[in-house]
Amino acid sequence: MQTARTTPSRSAKRAHYDEATINPILDEALFCVVSYSIDGQPMAIPTAFARKDDKLYIHGSVGSHFIRMIEPGNPVCISVMLTDGLVLAKSAFHHSVNYRSVTIFANAQKVTDEAERMEALALITDHLIPGRWADLRPTTDSEMRKTTVLVFSLAEASAKVRTGGPIDEPEDDELPTWAGVIPMQTVRLTPVPKEGQTNCSLPDYLA
Amino acid sequence: MQTARTTPSRSAKRAHYDEATINPILDEALFCVVSYSIDGQPMAIPTAFARKDDKLYIHGSVGSHFIRMIEPGNPVCISVMLTDGLVLAKSAFHHSVNYRSVTIFANAQKVTDEAERMEALALITDHLIPGRWADLRPTTDSEMRKTTVLVFSLAEASAKVRTGGPIDEPEDDELPTWAGVIPMQTVRLTPVPKEGQTNCSLPDYLA
Repeated sequence: MQTARTTPSRSAKRAHYDEATINPILDEALFCVVSYSIDGQPMAIPTAFARKDDKLYIHGSVGSHFIRMIEPGNPVCISVMLTDGLVLAKSAFHHSVNYRSVTIFANAQKVTDEAERMEALALITDHLIPGRWADLRPTTDSEMRKTTVLVFSLAEASAKVRTGGPIDEPEDDELPTWAGVIPMQTVRLTPVPKEGQTNCSLPDYLA
Repeated sequence: MQTARTTPSRSAKRAHYDEATINPILDEALFCVVSYSIDGQPMAIPTAFARKDDKLYIHGSVGSHFIRMIEPGNPVCISVMLTDGLVLAKSAFHHSVNYRSVTIFANAQKVTDEAERMEALALITDHLIPGRWADLRPTTDSEMRKTTVLVFSLAEASAKVRTGGPIDEPEDDELPTWAGVIPMQTVRLTPVPKEGQTNCSLPDYLA
Protein backbone atom coordinates (compact mmCIF):
# COMPACT_ATOMS: atom_id res chain seq x y z
CA MET A 1 0.00 0.00 0.00
CA GLN A 2 2.26 2.74 -1.30
CA THR A 3 1.02 6.20 -2.06
CA ALA A 4 2.49 8.13 -4.94
CA ARG A 5 0.65 11.35 -4.18
CA THR A 6 1.73 13.94 -1.69
CA THR A 7 0.44 12.79 1.65
CA PRO A 8 -0.61 15.64 3.96
CA SER A 9 1.68 14.32 6.66
CA ARG A 10 2.88 16.37 9.57
CA SER A 11 5.30 13.78 10.67
CA ALA A 12 6.69 11.52 7.99
CA LYS A 13 8.47 9.31 10.50
CA ARG A 14 5.11 8.14 11.83
CA ALA A 15 3.92 6.94 8.41
CA HIS A 16 3.22 3.29 7.61
CA TYR A 17 2.14 1.77 4.32
CA ASP A 18 1.70 -1.88 5.24
CA GLU A 19 -1.60 -3.72 5.55
CA ALA A 20 -0.56 -5.14 8.91
CA THR A 21 -0.69 -1.60 10.32
CA ILE A 22 -3.52 -0.16 8.22
CA ASN A 23 -6.13 -2.93 8.33
CA PRO A 24 -6.50 -3.29 12.13
CA ILE A 25 -7.08 0.48 12.40
CA LEU A 26 -9.80 0.33 9.75
CA ASP A 27 -11.35 -2.69 11.44
CA GLU A 28 -11.40 -1.08 14.90
CA ALA A 29 -12.65 2.39 13.94
CA LEU A 30 -16.42 2.60 13.41
CA PHE A 31 -16.62 5.85 11.45
CA CYS A 32 -14.61 7.70 8.83
CA VAL A 33 -14.78 11.20 7.40
CA VAL A 34 -15.09 11.28 3.61
CA SER A 35 -13.76 14.53 2.13
CA TYR A 36 -14.51 15.63 -1.40
CA SER A 37 -14.33 18.82 -3.37
CA ILE A 38 -16.82 20.70 -5.53
CA ASP A 39 -15.28 23.45 -7.67
CA GLY A 40 -12.46 23.82 -5.17
CA GLN A 41 -14.77 23.95 -2.14
CA PRO A 42 -13.83 21.17 0.30
CA MET A 43 -16.70 19.24 1.87
CA ALA A 44 -16.68 16.42 4.38
CA ILE A 45 -19.15 13.90 5.76
CA PRO A 46 -18.69 11.45 8.66
CA THR A 47 -20.11 8.03 7.86
CA ALA A 48 -19.99 4.34 8.77
CA PHE A 49 -17.89 2.01 6.67
CA ALA A 50 -16.45 -1.49 6.45
CA ARG A 51 -13.30 -3.00 5.01
CA LYS A 52 -12.96 -6.25 3.06
CA ASP A 53 -9.54 -7.23 1.75
CA ASP A 54 -8.16 -4.13 0.01
CA LYS A 55 -11.52 -2.38 -0.39
CA LEU A 56 -13.54 -0.03 1.78
CA TYR A 57 -17.33 0.24 1.48
CA ILE A 58 -19.73 3.00 2.46
CA HIS A 59 -23.44 3.33 1.78
CA GLY A 60 -26.08 6.02 1.70
CA SER A 61 -29.43 7.04 0.39
CA VAL A 62 -29.68 7.27 -3.40
CA GLY A 63 -31.04 10.79 -2.80
CA SER A 64 -28.13 11.95 -0.63
CA HIS A 65 -26.36 15.04 -1.96
CA PHE A 66 -23.05 13.67 -0.73
CA ILE A 67 -23.47 10.30 -2.44
CA ARG A 68 -24.61 11.87 -5.70
CA MET A 69 -21.63 14.23 -5.70
CA ILE A 70 -19.00 11.53 -5.40
CA GLU A 71 -20.54 8.49 -7.13
CA PRO A 72 -19.43 9.47 -10.66
CA GLY A 73 -15.90 8.44 -9.68
CA ASN A 74 -14.78 11.61 -7.99
CA PRO A 75 -11.61 11.72 -5.90
CA VAL A 76 -12.03 11.56 -2.14
CA CYS A 77 -9.84 11.55 0.92
CA ILE A 78 -11.03 9.22 3.65
CA SER A 79 -9.79 9.91 7.15
CA VAL A 80 -10.02 7.51 10.10
CA MET A 81 -8.68 8.24 13.57
CA LEU A 82 -8.54 6.33 16.83
CA THR A 83 -7.35 8.35 19.82
CA ASP A 84 -5.57 6.25 22.41
CA GLY A 85 -4.36 8.90 24.82
CA LEU A 86 -3.43 12.46 25.62
CA VAL A 87 0.32 12.91 26.02
CA LEU A 88 1.23 15.46 28.69
CA ALA A 89 4.77 16.77 28.50
CA LYS A 90 6.64 19.14 30.81
CA SER A 91 6.15 21.93 28.25
CA ALA A 92 3.06 22.89 26.23
CA PHE A 93 5.15 22.58 23.07
CA HIS A 94 5.76 18.85 23.51
CA HIS A 95 2.18 17.89 24.37
CA SER A 96 0.93 15.33 21.90
CA VAL A 97 -1.70 12.69 21.24
CA ASN A 98 -1.34 8.95 20.99
CA TYR A 99 -3.38 8.01 17.96
CA ARG A 100 -3.70 5.60 15.08
CA SER A 101 -4.95 7.16 11.88
CA VAL A 102 -5.45 6.10 8.28
CA THR A 103 -5.66 8.36 5.25
CA ILE A 104 -6.96 6.95 1.98
CA PHE A 105 -6.85 8.62 -1.42
CA ALA A 106 -9.27 6.95 -3.82
CA ASN A 107 -11.97 7.51 -6.38
CA ALA A 108 -15.52 6.46 -5.59
CA GLN A 109 -16.84 3.47 -7.53
CA LYS A 110 -20.52 2.64 -7.47
CA VAL A 111 -21.16 -1.04 -6.75
CA THR A 112 -23.71 -2.46 -9.18
CA ASP A 113 -23.49 -6.20 -8.56
CA GLU A 114 -26.44 -7.04 -6.33
CA ALA A 115 -24.62 -9.75 -4.37
CA GLU A 116 -21.70 -7.42 -3.67
CA ARG A 117 -24.11 -4.65 -2.63
CA MET A 118 -25.82 -6.98 -0.17
CA GLU A 119 -22.49 -8.24 1.17
CA ALA A 120 -21.30 -4.64 1.67
CA LEU A 121 -24.39 -3.81 3.72
CA ALA A 122 -23.82 -6.92 5.82
CA LEU A 123 -20.18 -5.94 6.33
CA ILE A 124 -21.08 -2.37 7.37
CA THR A 125 -23.79 -3.61 9.77
CA ASP A 126 -21.55 -6.25 11.35
CA HIS A 127 -18.65 -3.79 11.57
CA LEU A 128 -20.76 -1.61 13.87
CA ILE A 129 -22.48 -4.49 15.67
CA PRO A 130 -20.76 -7.86 15.21
CA GLY A 131 -23.30 -10.62 14.69
CA ARG A 132 -26.19 -8.30 13.89
CA TRP A 133 -26.80 -9.10 10.20
CA ALA A 134 -27.67 -12.77 10.80
CA ASP A 135 -30.33 -11.70 13.31
CA LEU A 136 -32.17 -9.38 10.90
CA ARG A 137 -34.99 -10.06 8.44
CA PRO A 138 -33.89 -10.06 4.78
CA THR A 139 -33.49 -6.64 3.19
CA THR A 140 -36.31 -5.94 0.72
CA ASP A 141 -35.95 -5.04 -2.96
CA SER A 142 -37.45 -1.65 -2.20
CA GLU A 143 -34.85 -0.99 0.52
CA MET A 144 -32.06 -2.05 -1.84
CA ARG A 145 -33.35 0.30 -4.55
CA LYS A 146 -33.16 3.21 -2.09
CA THR A 147 -29.53 2.47 -1.19
CA THR A 148 -26.30 3.31 -2.99
CA VAL A 149 -23.15 1.36 -2.14
CA LEU A 150 -19.76 2.84 -3.00
CA VAL A 151 -16.41 1.08 -2.91
CA PHE A 152 -12.91 2.57 -2.62
CA SER A 153 -9.55 0.96 -3.26
CA LEU A 154 -7.05 0.89 -0.39
CA ALA A 155 -4.12 0.98 -2.84
CA GLU A 156 -3.28 4.53 -1.74
CA ALA A 157 -3.76 4.14 1.99
CA SER A 158 -1.31 5.12 4.67
CA ALA A 159 -1.36 4.98 8.44
CA LYS A 160 0.18 7.16 11.10
CA VAL A 161 0.72 5.92 14.62
CA ARG A 162 2.02 7.57 17.76
CA THR A 163 2.54 5.59 20.94
CA GLY A 164 4.41 6.05 24.18
CA GLY A 165 5.06 8.81 26.63
CA PRO A 166 6.09 12.43 26.21
CA ILE A 167 9.47 13.40 24.73
CA ASP A 168 10.71 16.39 26.70
CA GLU A 169 13.62 18.76 26.32
CA PRO A 170 16.39 17.48 28.63
CA GLU A 171 16.46 20.78 30.50
CA ASP A 172 12.73 20.44 31.31
CA ASP A 173 13.06 17.05 32.98
CA GLU A 174 13.71 18.52 36.40
CA LEU A 175 10.50 20.58 36.34
CA PRO A 176 7.99 19.47 39.00
CA THR A 177 5.19 19.40 36.39
CA TRP A 178 3.44 16.04 36.16
CA ALA A 179 4.05 14.41 32.76
CA GLY A 180 2.65 11.22 31.32
CA VAL A 181 -0.25 9.81 29.36
CA ILE A 182 -4.00 9.94 29.98
CA PRO A 183 -5.29 6.87 28.13
CA MET A 184 -8.60 7.26 26.31
CA GLN A 185 -11.05 4.61 25.26
CA THR A 186 -14.44 4.49 23.58
CA VAL A 187 -16.74 2.11 25.43
CA ARG A 188 -20.19 0.66 24.80
CA LEU A 189 -22.59 1.01 27.72
CA THR A 190 -25.57 -1.14 28.70
CA PRO A 191 -28.00 -1.51 25.77
CA VAL A 192 -31.31 0.34 26.17
CA PRO A 193 -34.28 -1.53 24.66
CA LYS A 194 -36.72 0.26 22.38
CA GLU A 195 -39.64 1.76 24.28
CA GLY A 196 -42.51 -0.65 24.74
CA GLN A 197 -40.56 -3.63 23.47
CA THR A 198 -41.72 -6.76 25.30
CA ASN A 199 -41.41 -9.51 22.71
CA CYS A 200 -37.65 -10.13 22.87
CA SER A 201 -34.66 -10.22 25.19
CA LEU A 202 -31.09 -9.06 24.66
CA PRO A 203 -29.29 -11.49 22.34
CA ASP A 204 -25.92 -12.95 23.35
CA TYR A 205 -24.01 -11.00 20.68
CA LEU A 206 -25.06 -7.73 22.35
CA ALA A 207 -24.47 -8.80 25.96
CA MET B 1 -24.94 30.98 12.14
CA GLN B 2 -26.57 30.55 8.76
CA THR B 3 -24.84 28.92 5.87
CA ALA B 4 -25.47 30.19 2.38
CA ARG B 5 -23.54 27.43 0.64
CA THR B 6 -24.88 24.01 -0.19
CA THR B 7 -24.42 21.92 2.91
CA PRO B 8 -23.60 18.27 2.20
CA SER B 9 -26.50 17.19 4.34
CA ARG B 10 -28.01 13.75 4.21
CA SER B 11 -30.88 14.71 6.38
CA ALA B 12 -31.89 18.35 6.34
CA LYS B 13 -34.37 17.85 9.16
CA ARG B 14 -31.51 17.18 11.55
CA ALA B 15 -29.77 20.49 10.77
CA HIS B 16 -29.30 23.26 13.32
CA TYR B 17 -27.73 26.67 12.84
CA ASP B 18 -27.88 28.11 16.36
CA GLU B 19 -24.92 28.64 18.65
CA ALA B 20 -26.77 26.96 21.50
CA THR B 21 -26.57 23.69 19.57
CA ILE B 22 -23.23 24.18 17.80
CA ASN B 23 -21.00 25.50 20.59
CA PRO B 24 -21.47 22.69 23.14
CA ILE B 25 -20.57 20.13 20.45
CA LEU B 26 -17.38 22.03 19.60
CA ASP B 27 -16.55 22.35 23.28
CA GLU B 28 -17.05 18.65 24.03
CA ALA B 29 -15.27 17.18 21.00
CA LEU B 30 -11.48 17.08 21.29
CA PHE B 31 -10.55 16.64 17.65
CA CYS B 32 -11.77 17.79 14.26
CA VAL B 33 -10.95 16.79 10.70
CA VAL B 34 -9.84 19.69 8.50
CA SER B 35 -10.49 19.03 4.80
CA TYR B 36 -8.91 21.07 2.06
CA SER B 37 -8.34 20.69 -1.63
CA ILE B 38 -5.27 21.01 -3.85
CA ASP B 39 -6.01 21.18 -7.58
CA GLY B 40 -9.26 19.29 -7.02
CA GLN B 41 -7.64 16.58 -4.88
CA PRO B 42 -9.34 16.44 -1.47
CA MET B 43 -7.08 16.07 1.55
CA ALA B 44 -7.91 15.80 5.23
CA ILE B 45 -6.08 15.98 8.53
CA PRO B 46 -7.37 15.23 12.04
CA THR B 47 -6.18 17.78 14.57
CA ALA B 48 -6.87 19.30 17.97
CA PHE B 49 -8.71 22.61 18.18
CA ALA B 50 -10.43 25.04 20.51
CA ARG B 51 -13.34 27.42 20.21
CA LYS B 52 -13.60 30.96 21.57
CA ASP B 53 -16.76 32.96 20.88
CA ASP B 54 -17.41 32.57 17.14
CA LYS B 55 -13.89 31.49 16.22
CA LEU B 56 -12.13 28.14 16.05
CA TYR B 57 -8.35 27.83 16.44
CA ILE B 58 -5.93 25.14 15.33
CA HIS B 59 -2.16 25.07 15.44
CA GLY B 60 0.69 23.23 13.82
CA SER B 61 4.34 23.30 12.95
CA VAL B 62 5.40 26.11 10.64
CA GLY B 63 6.96 23.37 8.49
CA SER B 64 3.80 21.27 8.24
CA HIS B 65 2.68 20.62 4.66
CA PHE B 66 -0.95 20.84 5.76
CA ILE B 67 -0.53 24.19 7.52
CA ARG B 68 1.42 25.68 4.63
CA MET B 69 -1.23 24.56 2.14
CA ILE B 70 -4.13 26.24 3.90
CA GLU B 71 -2.57 29.28 5.63
CA PRO B 72 -2.82 31.60 2.59
CA GLY B 73 -6.57 31.81 3.22
CA ASN B 74 -7.68 28.66 1.46
CA PRO B 75 -11.19 27.27 1.94
CA VAL B 76 -11.57 24.37 4.32
CA CYS B 77 -14.36 22.20 5.64
CA ILE B 78 -14.01 21.34 9.31
CA SER B 79 -15.87 18.27 10.54
CA VAL B 80 -16.51 17.37 14.19
CA MET B 81 -18.46 14.34 15.34
CA LEU B 82 -19.47 12.93 18.71
CA THR B 83 -21.03 9.47 18.59
CA ASP B 84 -23.53 8.88 21.37
CA GLY B 85 -24.93 5.50 20.42
CA LEU B 86 -25.63 2.82 17.87
CA VAL B 87 -29.32 2.60 16.97
CA LEU B 88 -30.48 -0.95 16.32
CA ALA B 89 -33.76 -1.23 14.43
CA LYS B 90 -35.81 -4.29 13.53
CA SER B 91 -34.50 -4.03 9.94
CA ALA B 92 -30.97 -3.34 8.67
CA PHE B 93 -32.39 -0.44 6.65
CA HIS B 94 -33.46 1.54 9.71
CA HIS B 95 -30.27 1.09 11.71
CA SER B 96 -28.79 4.46 12.55
CA VAL B 97 -26.38 6.29 14.80
CA ASN B 98 -27.07 8.81 17.54
CA TYR B 99 -24.54 11.55 16.96
CA ARG B 100 -23.89 15.26 17.27
CA SER B 101 -21.84 16.71 14.45
CA VAL B 102 -20.73 20.14 13.30
CA THR B 103 -19.65 21.15 9.80
CA ILE B 104 -17.85 24.45 9.30
CA PHE B 105 -17.07 26.12 5.99
CA ALA B 106 -14.41 28.77 6.41
CA ASN B 107 -11.17 30.16 5.05
CA ALA B 108 -8.00 29.81 7.07
CA GLN B 109 -6.62 33.01 8.58
CA LYS B 110 -3.13 33.10 10.03
CA VAL B 111 -3.05 34.68 13.48
CA THR B 112 -0.20 37.19 13.72
CA ASP B 113 -0.94 39.00 16.98
CA GLU B 114 1.39 37.45 19.56
CA ALA B 115 -1.06 37.73 22.45
CA GLU B 116 -3.82 36.05 20.41
CA ARG B 117 -1.40 33.32 19.33
CA MET B 118 -0.50 32.62 22.95
CA GLU B 119 -4.14 32.66 24.02
CA ALA B 120 -5.04 30.22 21.23
CA LEU B 121 -2.36 27.77 22.40
CA ALA B 122 -3.68 28.06 25.96
CA LEU B 123 -7.22 27.43 24.72
CA ILE B 124 -6.20 24.37 22.70
CA THR B 125 -4.19 22.95 25.62
CA ASP B 126 -6.97 23.54 28.15
CA HIS B 127 -9.58 22.17 25.74
CA LEU B 128 -7.80 18.81 25.79
CA ILE B 129 -6.78 18.96 29.45
CA PRO B 130 -8.72 21.54 31.49
CA GLY B 131 -6.42 23.35 33.90
CA ARG B 132 -3.22 22.29 32.19
CA TRP B 133 -1.94 25.62 30.82
CA ALA B 134 -1.57 27.27 34.24
CA ASP B 135 0.60 24.36 35.40
CA LEU B 136 3.14 24.68 32.55
CA ARG B 137 6.31 26.72 32.25
CA PRO B 138 6.01 29.72 29.91
CA THR B 139 6.30 28.96 26.21
CA THR B 140 9.63 30.19 24.82
CA ASP B 141 10.15 32.56 21.89
CA SER B 142 11.79 29.75 19.96
CA GLU B 143 8.77 27.48 20.48
CA MET B 144 6.43 30.28 19.38
CA ARG B 145 8.49 30.87 16.22
CA LYS B 146 8.09 27.19 15.30
CA THR B 147 4.30 27.30 15.68
CA THR B 148 1.62 28.55 13.30
CA VAL B 149 -1.82 29.38 14.67
CA LEU B 150 -4.78 29.52 12.30
CA VAL B 151 -8.25 30.87 13.05
CA PHE B 152 -11.56 30.10 11.33
CA SER B 153 -14.85 31.93 11.53
CA LEU B 154 -17.88 29.98 12.71
CA ALA B 155 -20.21 32.17 10.63
CA GLU B 156 -20.90 29.23 8.29
CA ALA B 157 -21.26 26.47 10.84
CA SER B 158 -24.10 24.02 11.12
CA ALA B 159 -24.84 21.12 13.42
CA LYS B 160 -26.67 17.86 12.92
CA VAL B 161 -28.04 15.88 15.82
CA ARG B 162 -29.81 12.53 16.06
CA THR B 163 -31.18 11.28 19.35
CA GLY B 164 -33.63 8.64 20.48
CA GLY B 165 -34.50 5.08 19.59
CA PRO B 166 -35.02 3.34 16.26
CA ILE B 167 -37.88 4.27 13.94
CA ASP B 168 -39.21 1.03 12.46
CA GLU B 169 -41.71 0.20 9.77
CA PRO B 170 -45.00 -0.56 11.55
CA GLU B 171 -45.11 -4.04 10.01
CA ASP B 172 -41.70 -4.85 11.53
CA ASP B 173 -42.70 -4.08 15.10
CA GLU B 174 -43.90 -7.61 15.78
CA LEU B 175 -40.55 -9.15 14.78
CA PRO B 176 -38.77 -10.82 17.71
CA THR B 177 -35.52 -9.01 16.85
CA TRP B 178 -34.12 -6.96 19.75
CA ALA B 179 -34.19 -3.24 18.92
CA GLY B 180 -32.86 -0.31 20.91
CA VAL B 181 -29.77 1.79 21.48
CA ILE B 182 -26.24 0.83 22.52
CA PRO B 183 -24.91 4.03 24.14
CA MET B 184 -21.27 4.86 23.45
CA GLN B 185 -18.95 7.06 25.44
CA THR B 186 -15.31 8.10 25.27
CA VAL B 187 -13.70 7.85 28.69
CA ARG B 188 -10.36 8.87 30.20
CA LEU B 189 -8.60 6.10 32.09
CA THR B 190 -6.13 6.33 34.98
CA PRO B 191 -3.20 8.61 34.08
CA VAL B 192 0.13 6.83 33.54
CA PRO B 193 3.14 8.84 34.75
CA LYS B 194 6.17 9.29 32.52
CA GLU B 195 8.77 6.59 33.05
CA GLY B 196 11.22 7.37 35.82
CA GLN B 197 9.28 10.40 37.03
CA THR B 198 9.69 10.73 40.77
CA ASN B 199 9.65 14.47 41.37
CA CYS B 200 5.90 15.12 41.21
CA SER B 201 2.51 13.64 42.00
CA LEU B 202 -0.74 13.72 40.02
CA PRO B 203 -2.27 17.20 40.23
CA ASP B 204 -5.90 17.65 41.26
CA TYR B 205 -7.00 18.79 37.81
CA LEU B 206 -5.98 15.39 36.40
CA ALA B 207 -7.40 13.24 39.20
